[in-house]
Amino acid sequence: MAEKITPKEQNYSQWYVDIVLKAKLADYAPVKGCMVIRPRGFAIWEMMKSALDNMFKETGHQNAYFPLLIPDSFLKKEAEHVKGFSPELAVVTHGGGEKLEEPLAIRPTSETIIWSMYKKWIQSYRDLPLLINQWANIVRWEKRTRLFLRTTEFLWQEGHTAHASEAEAEEETLRMLMVYKKFAEEFMALPVLTGMKSESEKFAGAVQTYTIEAMMQDKRALQTGTSHNLGQNFARAFDVTYQTQDGNLDYVWATSWGVSTRLIGALIMAHSDNRGLVLPPNLAPTEVLIIPIFQNRNKAEVIGYTRRLYEQLRQEFRTEIDDGDQNSPGWKFSEAELRGIPVRIEAGPRELNKNQAVLVRRDTGEKLNVPADELKAKIKELIRDIQNTLFHRALTFRKENTHQASDYSSFKEILESRAGFIECGWCGSPECEAKIKEETKATIRVLPLGRNGGDDKSCIYCGAKAKELAVFAKAY
Amino acid sequence: MAEKITPKEQNYSQWYVDIVLKAKLADYAPVKGCMVIRPRGFAIWEMMKSALDNMFKETGHQNAYFPLLIPDSFLKKEAEHVKGFSPELAVVTHGGGEKLEEPLAIRPTSETIIWSMYKKWIQSYRDLPLLINQWANIVRWEKRTRLFLRTTEFLWQEGHTAHASEAEAEEETLRMLMVYKKFAEEFMALPVLTGMKSESEKFAGAVQTYTIEAMMQDKRALQTGTSHNLGQNFARAFDVTYQTQDGNLDYVWATSWGVSTRLIGALIMAHSDNRGLVLPPNLAPTEVLIIPIFQNRNKAEVIGYTRRLYEQLRQEFRTEIDDGDQNSPGWKFSEAELRGIPVRIEAGPRELNKNQAVLVRRDTGEKLNVPADELKAKIKELIRDIQNTLFHRALTFRKENTHQASDYSSFKEILESRAGFIECGWCGSPECEAKIKEETKATIRVLPLGRNGGDDKSCIYCGAKAKELAVFAKAY
Repeated sequence: MAEKITPKEQNYSQWYVDIVLKAKLADYAPVKGCMVIRPRGFAIWEMMKSALDNMFKETGHQNAYFPLLIPDSFLKKEAEHVKGFSPELAVVTHGGGEKLEEPLAIRPTSETIIWSMYKKWIQSYRDLPLLINQWANIVRWEKRTRLFLRTTEFLWQEGHTAHASEAEAEEETLRMLMVYKKFAEEFMALPVLTGMKSESEKFAGAVQTYTIEAMMQDKRALQTGTSHNLGQNFARAFDVTYQTQDGNLDYVWATSWGVSTRLIGALIMAHSDNRGLVLPPNLAPTEVLIIPIFQNRNKAEVIGYTRRLYEQLRQEFRTEIDDGDQNSPGWKFSEAELRGIPVRIEAGPRELNKNQAVLVRRDTGEKLNVPADELKAKIKELIRDIQNTLFHRALTFRKENTHQASDYSSFKEILESRAGFIECGWCGSPECEAKIKEETKATIRVLPLGRNGGDDKSCIYCGAKAKELAVFAKAY
Repeated sequence: MAEKITPKEQNYSQWYVDIVLKAKLADYAPVKGCMVIRPRGFAIWEMMKSALDNMFKETGHQNAYFPLLIPDSFLKKEAEHVKGFSPELAVVTHGGGEKLEEPLAIRPTSETIIWSMYKKWIQSYRDLPLLINQWANIVRWEKRTRLFLRTTEFLWQEGHTAHASEAEAEEETLRMLMVYKKFAEEFMALPVLTGMKSESEKFAGAVQTYTIEAMMQDKRALQTGTSHNLGQNFARAFDVTYQTQDGNLDYVWATSWGVSTRLIGALIMAHSDNRGLVLPPNLAPTEVLIIPIFQNRNKAEVIGYTRRLYEQLRQEFRTEIDDGDQNSPGWKFSEAELRGIPVRIEAGPRELNKNQAVLVRRDTGEKLNVPADELKAKIKELIRDIQNTLFHRALTFRKENTHQASDYSSFKEILESRAGFIECGWCGSPECEAKIKEETKATIRVLPLGRNGGDDKSCIYCGAKAKELAVFAKAY
């Protein structure tokens, strides 16, 4: 038997950690708050990277690489930025055996170092837009960490763009938000709400932060990606001006946007079950695993048969075969489930004789007997169906756990007894927001796009006329 | 006109820097010794990564990610290793506003952190071989830096494998050396010598270091990749034992191997000329650039024609079209040459009328008139030919600049008057090697594989019977 996973109904946090460790996705590193991403976890990240990178390139972005180390003075140039990030910095004070004249921070994000370069590269409107993305590691000194979801070091991408107008920067900010939404929904099978953050939750240095927010299986919210309109804040801090088409000088407009290895945590928490990981096929490093079932007397024939199936299928699907005899078929089935492989194929002497195979879906456990010559078509159909099923299951779950509240006592009652997302009116004041957080731990996750600002509602806390429709939840 | 490049005959170093900066491959960062890899340079790195990554995966390796920060005490566990790397460390002393109990080094290489994890993951021969690679950033505090060739921070890959026997580890070390050789020769069009390093030049902590060495156009050597047999050194330092098949306990055998963004420097120095970069097609982000030549009166027709060519070609080649009218065709030609694009297509009204196009090779400057319906076939042929031409040109250059020396005065005479590689006998003593270095600045680049150990020769320095055939050169 594969190792036992704590049932999520019993202890959700432990269930999550069990999956990460036992499916060998990641491990604790010897450095506080850091993780090692093991090959099985990294293979998922590689698939995420490749899908996102294609989407970034299709929208005109190029990759580049900026230094890891940022002079302390750079981080101080944008007032909000330094306030937000200075408590989390890792600082290099010595290099090559000597004390440095100026300490260097390990990048907690790269706006400052990048805008110091943009100053050299941007002179005229002809140099705009400048659309650059970077895949990199980031260090933020976190007090409480959790594998993938919040670690001292993590991997991410950060887009940093420069534009000739406010409108263009806003358009870019929203374009990339929609790229993230598409990625979450089509690849991760993860439905997300899109919208703005409130002042208190926005990125340090941004004019506006947009977010995609997802619901995990414990009904808590997880911020899975953000896209920031930075206005002219960083251009002013680094004195980046450009000659406009009509010959004037203006500060450049900026955006930045990022997603990280946190997405792997979201993927695990959204779909997995008590037998292990459940991967949407579009992000499964192995889509199909073939397990032959044999005894000594029929080993050669059965393995020969499944290897022929393997040769057929590998042209079309990311396929593996496990025909070793160190482990029993039962152990291999459990292991396939633990690893979250979408489709498992079992074939023994009976299947060989009938020239068929048994297909087992990871998401529902359903078993199908399929003739060998229909295997490809059937697997293609299954894979599409598993991807859809996971998305709709998560969407239904979110809908069932999204509630409306019109007064504060029902708001609190929902949070305590049912949890989930609560939609309600908000007057827009940071005070009401802070009080709610203090009293209930719920925060505004998102002010949804494309919904009217709660005109017909009152603020859930103070009862004044609402300015915004807000979605509150407890969050990771 | 594109910006002027210093001729290499006049000032080779400045020629190199001019190409890097003016072709926008990289830029100086505001942090000492660091560089920014700009989109055009990074696109080359992405092509290198993708080709190498495929080769690693074909040879059974998986990617993973280990932490950036390494506890100081880890680096001290292997005696040679700490001696080699401690002078180059960047050290984090503060995190989250507090002084750390133990300083953390930014990885100068990852053997120590990885072997601390292998201790957790390896128990039995069943867990071996463990074949892991990591793509990561590295920091080494360098005194004298040069864009791509030696920078404080650089990007690389590092393979770290664990084996059940000495023979298997040696086999792996040589396998990866051959992967590097194949990559250098088939993708970079760069002929390399393969062989061992002498004791004084080997990796700190290795039993044996193998290297691929290339000759640059100034006849100096550049080490372009290394593969190390680490024996049981790191297994002993981190106490990584495994249960052997016959029930005993033994230390695990290790290898590590890496190539870095230095390869981009090698690529530039090996093939480029006074008009700019020359890229081998297999690593050219853009293989074909189409430049329409038009006046106002025929603009629409000519652009229409070249766009039809573009639509045809882009299915088969990485193709770009530059049909803007901000710059003249002459400027665009220079820019295409500066960027090193292997094949340029020019087409104006005359070509439109004849339904043909002019192809210009970057490597030779040769121009060809080609009928439109033969374009694809001709470009395919050209691209193959350019790749071959670059390789053979570099190979001929190396051969012409490789000399034999049988006594020390001719050795010195060759170095002074002709430079290049010198093959000669060496008695194997570190003293002779050190003296030669001190007196001539030449070092042993490689003890070539597959050549007999100079049995018939005498040591170039002391005249004693030679133990090895050595290749000496001045190096980067």
